[in-house]
Formats: sequence, structure tokens, C-alpha cells
Amino acid sequence: MMTAASPRIKAGIVGGTGYTGVELLRLLSQHPNVELTAITSRKEDGMPVADMFPNLRGRVDLRFQTPDSAALDQCDVVFFATPHGVAMSQARELLGHGVRLIDLAADFRLRDTQVFEKWYKMPHSCPDILEESVYGLVEINRERIAGARVIGNPGCYPTTVILGLTPLIEGGKHLVDTTHIIADCKSGTSGAGRKAEVGTLYSEAGDNFKAYGVAGHRHHPEILEQLKHIAGEALGVTFVPHLVPMIRGMFSTIYARILPEALDTDFQALFEQRYAGEAFIDVMPAGSLPETRSVRASNHLRIAVHRPGGGDQLVVLVIQDNLVKGASGQAVQNMNLMFGLPESTGLDHVAVLP
Amino acid sequence: MMTAASPRIKAGIVGGTGYTGVELLRLLSQHPNVELTAITSRKEDGMPVADMFPNLRGRVDLRFQTPDSAALDQCDVVFFATPHGVAMSQARELLGHGVRLIDLAADFRLRDTQVFEKWYKMPHSCPDILEESVYGLVEINRERIAGARVIGNPGCYPTTVILGLTPLIEGGKHLVDTTHIIADCKSGTSGAGRKAEVGTLYSEAGDNFKAYGVAGHRHHPEILEQLKHIAGEALGVTFVPHLVPMIRGMFSTIYARILPEALDTDFQALFEQRYAGEAFIDVMPAGSLPETRSVRASNHLRIAVHRPGGGDQLVVLVIQDNLVKGASGQAVQNMNLMFGLPESTGLDHVAVLP
Amino acid sequence: MMTAASPRIKAGIVGGTGYTGVELLRLLSQHPNVELTAITSRKEDGMPVADMFPNLRGRVDLRFQTPDSAALDQCDVVFFATPHGVAMSQARELLGHGVRLIDLAADFRLRDTQVFEKWYKMPHSCPDILEESVYGLVEINRERIAGARVIGNPGCYPTTVILGLTPLIEGGKHLVDTTHIIADCKSGTSGAGRKAEVGTLYSEAGDNFKAYGVAGHRHHPEILEQLKHIAGEALGVTFVPHLVPMIRGMFSTIYARILPEALDTDFQALFEQRYAGEAFIDVMPAGSLPETRSVRASNHLRIAVHRPGGGDQLVVLVIQDNLVKGASGQAVQNMNLMFGLPESTGLDHVAVLP
Amino acid sequence: MMTAASPRIKAGIVGGTGYTGVELLRLLSQHPNVELTAITSRKEDGMPVADMFPNLRGRVDLRFQTPDSAALDQCDVVFFATPHGVAMSQARELLGHGVRLIDLAADFRLRDTQVFEKWYKMPHSCPDILEESVYGLVEINRERIAGARVIGNPGCYPTTVILGLTPLIEGGKHLVDTTHIIADCKSGTSGAGRKAEVGTLYSEAGDNFKAYGVAGHRHHPEILEQLKHIAGEALGVTFVPHLVPMIRGMFSTIYARILPEALDTDFQALFEQRYAGEAFIDVMPAGSLPETRSVRASNHLRIAVHRPGGGDQLVVLVIQDNLVKGASGQAVQNMNLMFGLPESTGLDHVAVLP
Repeated sequence: MMTAASPRIKAGIVGGTGYTGVELLRLLSQHPNVELTAITSRKEDGMPVADMFPNLRGRVDLRFQTPDSAALDQCDVVFFATPHGVAMSQARELLGHGVRLIDLAADFRLRDTQVFEKWYKMPHSCPDILEESVYGLVEINRERIAGARVIGNPGCYPTTVILGLTPLIEGGKHLVDTTHIIADCKSGTSGAGRKAEVGTLYSEAGDNFKAYGVAGHRHHPEILEQLKHIAGEALGVTFVPHLVPMIRGMFSTIYARILPEALDTDFQALFEQRYAGEAFIDVMPAGSLPETRSVRASNHLRIAVHRPGGGDQLVVLVIQDNLVKGASGQAVQNMNLMFGLPESTGLDHVAVLP
Repeated sequence: MMTAASPRIKAGIVGGTGYTGVELLRLLSQHPNVELTAITSRKEDGMPVADMFPNLRGRVDLRFQTPDSAALDQCDVVFFATPHGVAMSQARELLGHGVRLIDLAADFRLRDTQVFEKWYKMPHSCPDILEESVYGLVEINRERIAGARVIGNPGCYPTTVILGLTPLIEGGKHLVDTTHIIADCKSGTSGAGRKAEVGTLYSEAGDNFKAYGVAGHRHHPEILEQLKHIAGEALGVTFVPHLVPMIRGMFSTIYARILPEALDTDFQALFEQRYAGEAFIDVMPAGSLPETRSVRASNHLRIAVHRPGGGDQLVVLVIQDNLVKGASGQAVQNMNLMFGLPESTGLDHVAVLP
Repeated sequence: MMTAASPRIKAGIVGGTGYTGVELLRLLSQHPNVELTAITSRKEDGMPVADMFPNLRGRVDLRFQTPDSAALDQCDVVFFATPHGVAMSQARELLGHGVRLIDLAADFRLRDTQVFEKWYKMPHSCPDILEESVYGLVEINRERIAGARVIGNPGCYPTTVILGLTPLIEGGKHLVDTTHIIADCKSGTSGAGRKAEVGTLYSEAGDNFKAYGVAGHRHHPEILEQLKHIAGEALGVTFVPHLVPMIRGMFSTIYARILPEALDTDFQALFEQRYAGEAFIDVMPAGSLPETRSVRASNHLRIAVHRPGGGDQLVVLVIQDNLVKGASGQAVQNMNLMFGLPESTGLDHVAVLP
Repeated sequence: MMTAASPRIKAGIVGGTGYTGVELLRLLSQHPNVELTAITSRKEDGMPVADMFPNLRGRVDLRFQTPDSAALDQCDVVFFATPHGVAMSQARELLGHGVRLIDLAADFRLRDTQVFEKWYKMPHSCPDILEESVYGLVEINRERIAGARVIGNPGCYPTTVILGLTPLIEGGKHLVDTTHIIADCKSGTSGAGRKAEVGTLYSEAGDNFKAYGVAGHRHHPEILEQLKHIAGEALGVTFVPHLVPMIRGMFSTIYARILPEALDTDFQALFEQRYAGEAFIDVMPAGSLPETRSVRASNHLRIAVHRPGGGDQLVVLVIQDNLVKGASGQAVQNMNLMFGLPESTGLDHVAVLP
């Protein structure tokens, strides 16, 4: 375990101009055991990071560098806040220098390379590294993460759906009908990234609500693969994501039909016991109605379990900040584990409300 | 049928200071066959309507009057944009003067007075008038509406859920599992009304997403009662409403499991046929992803039918402007029918986008 | 003057994929004397307009065409909702076919081609047509517009600032210090157009407020040129635009110091008299505080005149919908005049509130 | 100076159910040298604070107490996040127990009790305590604050206007025309507080922009009084506040005419020098365009100095988070000074962007 006297972890960020990048910068620049040593952007080479993200003025003095000029191989850990495909192209070399990797894109999320290739339209370039990599959902894979060299940081939607379903399905439980689960998910616009696109302009996404990806979304196979691993059998999940006119925040409403033999189950207790002791998972009291703003800018994920009318339909409400627990905060949580730090180091911010 | 030369319909509004009231004013002040003759508000007696709602400056010269001083009994039709319980207290007297009534609150929505009393915490004061009243969902009850004296204008959520399910269930069809339908609904904040409340302040509802009424919502029994009437049998519907940080707009995502014997059904065709010829129901082409802004300030309701992965889970997406088709526009549509006007008279506004 | 029996005006739109384009489509498709005959977009050739803008489903059956294939020369009037420079490149040919032109970009706004070239970084390709063109601010140039073949439709900011200052300066009045006028202006994000840009993403412009163009903005020389023309002398105006997290709406707060000899002026009466009879200019009662939503989706512009503490500082508040009176509505108002129609034909929509 | 080993400051909050209250809770619960010991609310007596503000779940275990039952006299410092008039009613008793006071309302802002009584419609009940109290604008009154027993925490608008003008006027400088300064200010809706009011509902304040208080606003006399004190002479300031559809954030655009004899002044240098060494004042590089989101949830205030066209009109742009530097953060900054802590203790959060 690191102590206050330990040397700081040297951290680099590849592709730091997007929202997961700036959120990593916000978190890492306040982390007591981290020294930010390099951040790359081909396009913004030479630009002070704080010119692009003025919230970092006076806190981050780095300039963007090209990947070639940045001494990433001197880092202890490198975060990839890049488009899909970048991390796997640089993984082998960095591992060779003893650098550990946390990829916030999808290169190391899906275990099945065929599924990866189908959804991401590119071959996987390092199946062997994928093989040793760990899916970085701490509350599920804590031990394996602590010893990992490469982490596939989970997608935002999968984080909420998997954590919202795990207590119901893990260990071969037979509590709900796992063939027809519904995950009706809603995300703020920052989930779409900091890309110049018409669809997420203020004038398009503001004062508007829509579904998207109903015919298929890349997070769907990720959800299915992980749930199968946890449940020990394939599940049927209908996943419909929606876009909410807000910046941060994700809300997943999960519906599962309780099996006749499980109608007496105390689901509230089930969830509370599963997540007892988890620093970032808050199973709220029975009857609670979580709001996304209660986790704005924090790494917490809150869950409320409902059973309307006492019937056989279970409704699980899950919220998180898609940029924190759904991306950069979870990445830092993984880093803490990998380097022997207390899991919540640098992640104990109180959510910003209002 | 009325003609351009017909005398105008004299219309009154009781309780015109809320959002359904101002929306009625917007629509009726532009309606070619209507003369607005009275609008009441106990609290704002004497105030020019356009002082409260400056969008009406130069268009509406009326002042608010007390219910007593307003000559409502001289009207041809009176709209109640009031809290629940007001319309039924004035119905008998107005009917006695030959006035027709359209209640935008719940007094004439629920057929079962015991259900009404349970959910609205007041006895129903005129069961006989309720008996003759018609549930004002034009696409379901067109003929009865044309001859009605009293209309219970549907709730906003029920309008989307009922119209989204009708093609699947009416006439004793056996297409989907009607015991476990899910309606995951999302509404803009105007649905909460123009009431001074902390929960819908900009600083509370903005940049935030939440569910509410999971344990029970007044629109749930209304949905169940109407669907039972349409299907000829009781249905099981889990209904979870959510609050979206936008002003107008409602989006309902409806999930129904297709029965094994119905897997060959062409659901797209089913919906298109059911609503063929409907002026305000737009069954969008297969694969469409409707956005609430495409109906902003218009009386249209759009439906898209999805079957993700070609499986047995049907996903029906329904959008409307909660203040128009979900309230005041539907009320005007009812009025048009009741007075023999073409159904879309005064309702042919193109939606405002962006 | 046209009558109901007159043949409809054949209208074309060049570049209909932006916000001024879709707003023209909304207004013209509801205009009783207009037949939309062509709409062009190089990029979207062949696409049904209503696929891009679903608010037009059932109302506009046109498809986008390339400029070459569209029979623009058969139109009575062509609107240019294009980037700067397009209208002037096609003007001569269309005029040759007897088509009248209304340019919503800047090609025919600035009278001085050197100023145009400085701010728009391109030479003016038809100074002779510019010479005969008219600046389409109806309340200033009504008579000349009626006889014009080419209209330069005003910029959104200039519309508010010019109309907010005209009563104070026209005809050589000496009421305020015209050397140091301040126009602190605020615009919704739709003013930035429907362009894929990072700066106007929801996640960037939402929950945020900023100034821009402080060092120089293209609407500044337009304001100065028109005010000089109206006042008969050059004015000094400091113009600072700001971006507001809303879609539609513009609010200009104009400050002018009252000259000592004019302290007894009744400024409220001055504004009321100047705009008496104007269909779209609403001088609100003394003390009024206009809100942009009171003109949402309508062609009205409202003005309130304040003199805080009765001192020598005049504060003029001006609001409009930047896409209507600030762009497409004003263009239709110009068209009405040019074709002898009552000025408010097709523009009498009540603003949408809330 | 306190050290890590010092006992913690015992802090109480009176009236903790509003936005400045919950923001104090967020900041103080993360402050390394503070122990929150009491929080009062008559109305919510007994309710766990984290039930009302779920962002505090797991961080604040206090319950609201009535003012009588809370042991406020055992505190080292008490913050008043109350309506105007409350702090002065309890000040004498608490001071008698050696408690220091920081009032976030107006009781100790205005030095002139007649001005206070005119604007706040109540007599001042303890002019002697007002006499010894200090206006808590650290960058102006640092030394006096360190020794104060009672602090009047500045209003949000005054903080931006005073800090934006101080370098121009202090010490009898003659740089700008101080008779006609203009402060065009814009605030997010949280500035209106967590009060049930129609005007700040999401459906009213959303997608809308308006001015308010043009005829008079309570922050105007506060601005004038402090500026007079700083300049040594009375100034003329026209102050127009506006409401922006965002939650947090304040943007002030200040206009001052440069005097002929001061045209050679390097205003950028003037501001940089005045605020050199200030932890929370960021004078941005020449040409900068600050955005409110760059200080969201942080105690920083950023200033940009512009001189459009190099003329004689100075434009100073000032931003802050109205709930932090404009209220609760500034209050904690005052507390730090009063208790000998480094000024930025517990206030070094990086702003949340996006």
C-alpha cells in the first residue's frame, strides 16, 4: 500500500481533448498521489491544456504533445481517452516499458473479438493482451483489477445496467425472468463526447427528448457479455438508450419480472447486502427516488429498488454521473486499486447540487 | 356542419392562469370559428389576460373575471382548466343552460367513482353526469364525442399509452402478453403545471433527471380503465413516469412481449392501418426515431414501432406535446367534433423546430 | 393587392438545411398565398425535406434538389438561406428571369463594399445589384421594399439595435449622446446556425454564459451603417454579443445617455408614437420587463423603455425571436410587401408560451 | 495559524435549507479544519439533512434542529444562510458566547442603516454591531476581516461589480468617467433561492431571457456604498440584472468610458498588478472570453479586460459561481481568514467542466 511518503504515480493521458479527458484532468490534478506528466493530442500539439479547458487555469500547467514526443513510456500508468482502436495500437509497446494501461474506450471491454469486430468495424490487433486484460468494474472484479496490467474501463450504460442487475442474477440465483429484462436508459449529452456534430448541438438536443440506437447500440453486447459472465448463463435484455437535455447524468430504469418462486424475496435487503461496504454504491432506502444531480461530479452510483403495487414486476432505478462513475472516476478507482491505494483516494468529492 | 358564415362558437375558460389555460388561449384566439367570451380566475379578477401572458398582447383583450361575474351560462362551450373537482361542481348548472363542457382535469375521466375517490381524495358529486360524459380521446371515441354534452379530456400520459397500445389490443386481439406491459414515460416540466413548488424550480429540475410516482400515479388507473375498455379484458401495465429538463414534450417508451402465435405479425402495417386517415396520428416509417421537438406546439402525436433484433419484444415509441395533444389541443379537437367542425380546424399549426 | 383568388406566389429556397431554412419552411408552408416550389441543398439532393425536419411531415412534400436541377428561375421569389456569398453569385441570372430575391445572409446588407470585403473576406461580385437592393427592415424602409427586386434581410442583432434606437436618433434629433451608445446583446444558440461545431454543442453551451465577438463582430458595421443612415451622422456604438443557453430568443439591453437639453422628453410617448400602427412592433407600457418567450415563434418585437431612478441614463430593452423577426419572419414580411399582400399575412401566429 | 493538529473549528449553520445552505454544507463537509456541529431549520426539525440534499448522503449525518434546540452558542462560528433580518436578531446573544458570525444575507452589508431600512423594509436592530462588522470582500478588506467578529458576506452581484471596478477607481485614480458606469449583469436561477415561486419554475425561466429589477434592486445601494468607500467619492452606476436559463453562474459586463487623460493606460497590467497573488482572482490574458462554466462549483472569479477597437470604451467581463465566490465560498474564505487558516483551505476545488 502506498503511503503519503510514497513517490507519486506518474500518469499520462492519451487524447485529452474530450470530455473523459478533461474529467480525468480534473480528478487527477486533485489526486494526492498522482503526478500528471504527459497529455497528448495530435491536433492541439503545443497548446496549453488550460487554454482549452479554462477550469484548469492555475492547476494544470501541461501542454498537449504529440503521442511521439510525449514520454508516455516513462509513466506508471497511461489512460486512453481516445477513440476506439487507439489503445490497442499502443498497448504492447507501453507494456514493454512496464506501463500499466487503462483504456476508457472499448478496446478491452468485449472479451469476444468477433463481437468486437462486428460492432466496432475493426479487427482486434492484440487478442493476447485482451486475454489478460480485466474489465474494470471494481464492484465485480476487484481482486483481478488489483493485479492487472491492462484495464478495459466499462461503458457508461453497462456500468448502470450491470450493477443494477448483479444482485439479482449472480451465483446462479433464480429470482427474476432473465430472458426478458428491460433496460430503459437515459443519458445526458456529454455521453456523446466533445465532437462537432449537428445532433448534439444545443439547438438540436435542447428542449427535446428522443430515443436512439433502438436497432442496436455498442453497449448492448457489452452488457450481455458481462451479465452472462456474472449469471453463468446468457440473459435476454432489451436495451433502449435515450438522450436527455442535460449535460451530465445517467438514469437507468430496469424492469425484471419476479419469478413465482421468488415472490417472497426481500429485494431491498438483497441489494443492501450485496453492496454493503462499497464506498461508491449507495443502495437508497426503500421508496427512494434518486435524482441524477445527487451524483453530479461525484463517483457515486445510487440504486433504488421498487416493486410497484407489491406485484411481480421489479423496477430498479440506477443513477450515476456518466463522466465520473461512468467513465473517468471509475478509471481513477481502477488506478487506485492497481497501485495499492485506498479505493476512494482522490474521489471523495461531494456531488454538486444544485 | 358549420361554415365560414356560421356564427362563432362562444367559448369560456374557467381557471385560465395555468399552462393548459394559456395554451387554450393561444389555440382558441387563432381558431377561425371561436369567439372567446369569458375567462375566469378568482385570484386575478380584473387583470388583463395579456398582462399575465404577454404572448397574447394584441390578440386577447379579455380580463380575468370571478366565476360568479363571468357570463359562463351564455357560452356554447366552457373549458375547465382547473384543479380536479371544480368542473363537477359547476357542471349541472351549466348543462341546464345548454352549455357543453370540456374538463381538462380528471372529474370526467375515470368511469368508476370508487377509483376516482381513491386517487383524487374527494367524492364524485355528480355520478349521473359522469355516466353520460365521454372520455375525449377522439381516435377511440370519435362518434360518441360528436354527440356528447360533457367531455373528460384525457390525461397527458394516458393519451400516449392508450394510443400506443390500441392497435395491439383492441377487438380481442391476441398479439402481445397483456399481463406485463411496461410504459416508461418521460414528461417535460410543464406537465407539473404553473404552481409555485420547489420541485419544479429551474434550479431543481434543470440539468437533472428523475423518476417519480413509481409507487402510484393518478394516470395509472386511467390507463388501466381505458385499456380494459378497449381490450375487453383487464391488462397489467407497469407505469413509471419521469421528469425531463425540458418545458414541453412527452415521450413514452412502451414494451410488450409478442405472443408466440403472433410472431409473424406485421406490426408496422397494423399501426399504419389503424391510424390511416387520422389527421393527428403519424405512424412514422419503420426504423424512425421520433423526437419530441417535432411536435412542439402542434397537436400531432407520432408513433414509431420497433422490434429490436427481430425478436419477440415490441418497443413502441410515442411522442406528443403534453400541452397540445396531451391537453389543450385535444380539448379543441373535441370541441371541433362536438360542434360539427372539421376536426383539425384551428389546429393545423406546424410544429416549432428548433 | 393580391386577393384570395390570386394565383399563389411561387417561392423557392436556396440552402434549406439550416435554421433559417426550416423556419422559412414552417412559415411559408402555412402562408395562404404561397406555393413552395423548390428547395435546394447540394449535400442532401433527393432527400425529402420532411425526413430532415420531421415537424414538416404531412405538410411539405418537397425533396431537396441541387441548385442546378431546381427550377429556381420559374419562381416569383427566391429566398437565400445560405452562407454569405451565395446569393450574389446567383442574383444576376435570377433577376434576368424576373425572379425577386430575398437574401437572409449578408450579401446585400452592407452598402459599402469595402466594409463588406473587410468583414466577410470576399470581394462583392455585383456592386450594381447591391446598389439597387434595399435593406429589408420594414419599419424603416417600407416604401422602398415594396418596389424592390432584391432585399438584404437584416441581421438579427441589427434588427433589435436599430429598432431600439431609431426613435431616439432619426431626423436629426438631439436627445441622447450618440457618441457612446452601448448595446449589450444576448442571443439564443440557434443564431449560430445548424453547423457541426464544438462551441455550440449542448454540453458546451448549456448551463453556461459567455460573451463573444467583443473584439469585433460582423453585425457591428451593419448596425453602424444603418444608424448613420437613419441619424444622418455617424454614431459610436459599443456592441457586445453574448450567448444564452436557450434555443430561440434575442434580448438587447441598450444604454444611451440623455442629453441635458432633452431631460424633459417623454421617451415612452416618443417610442409609442414612432411605432403606432406597426403590426409587429409592440412598445410595452412603461415599467414593463419583456421576456424572450413572449415572442417565441412569432414575428413580434417588443420594446420597453426605462429610465432608472429618473436619471439621465436611458435603458431600452428589445426582444425578438432571432429566427422570426430576426430572420425568416422578417423575410416573409418583406415578401408580403413586395407582392402587395397585407404585411402580416401568414405571420399572425401567437407566440408559444411556455 | 492553525495546524493540522489544531482542534477543528466548530461550525453551525442557521437556515440550511436553501441553496447557500446546501453549498455551505458541501464546502464545510469537505473542509479539513471544520467540524459541522449544528444546522437549523424550524420547518424541517428532525429531518436528516441528507434526506433533503441527497448529494450529502454518507457525508453529513446531521439532522435539522430548531434554532432553540441547536447548541449554536457552543460553536466557534455560525453562518446565517437565512432571510434578511434573522442574523441581526441573534447576533448579540451569540457574540456574548464568543461565537463569530458570518451573515450571508444583507443584515451586515450596508453601512448606512437608513439605506438598509429603505431597501429591506425593516429597521436595523443592532446598529452598534453593524458598526463593528466588516464587509466580507476579502480582496478589499483582508486585514479587517482577519480580526472581525461579524462579517456581512457580500451580495453576488456586488462581488463581481466591485472587484471588476476596483483597479480602476481605488486610491483616487482618475482613469474612467465614474459618473456613468454601466453594469449589465446576468445571473443563473439559483440566485433567486430555493423558494416556491412561479417566476423561477423551469417552465417559466427555461428557454427564456429577461431583465428584472431595472427600476431598483437591493444590490444597487450595496454596490454604490462600497464603490464610494473604495473610490473616496460617490459613483454613478446603472445596474441592470438579467436572469439566465442556467443554474449556477454569474456574468457581469461592465462598461466605463476612459477619460481623455488616461487613454495611454495599460489596463491589462493595471488589473494584473492589482490582483497579483490573489488565490481566487484570475485576470485572464488580454483578449480572453471567460465562460461561467469555467468556475462552476469553484471559488474563482475571472476577469477579462477589453477595449474594443482600441477606443475609449473599456469593457470588463467578470464571472463567478454565484453560489461559491458569490456566496458560500466567499463565506468560507472569510472564515479561513478569521481563524488564521490559509485562505484557500477547503476551497481548492477544480471547477466542474462540462
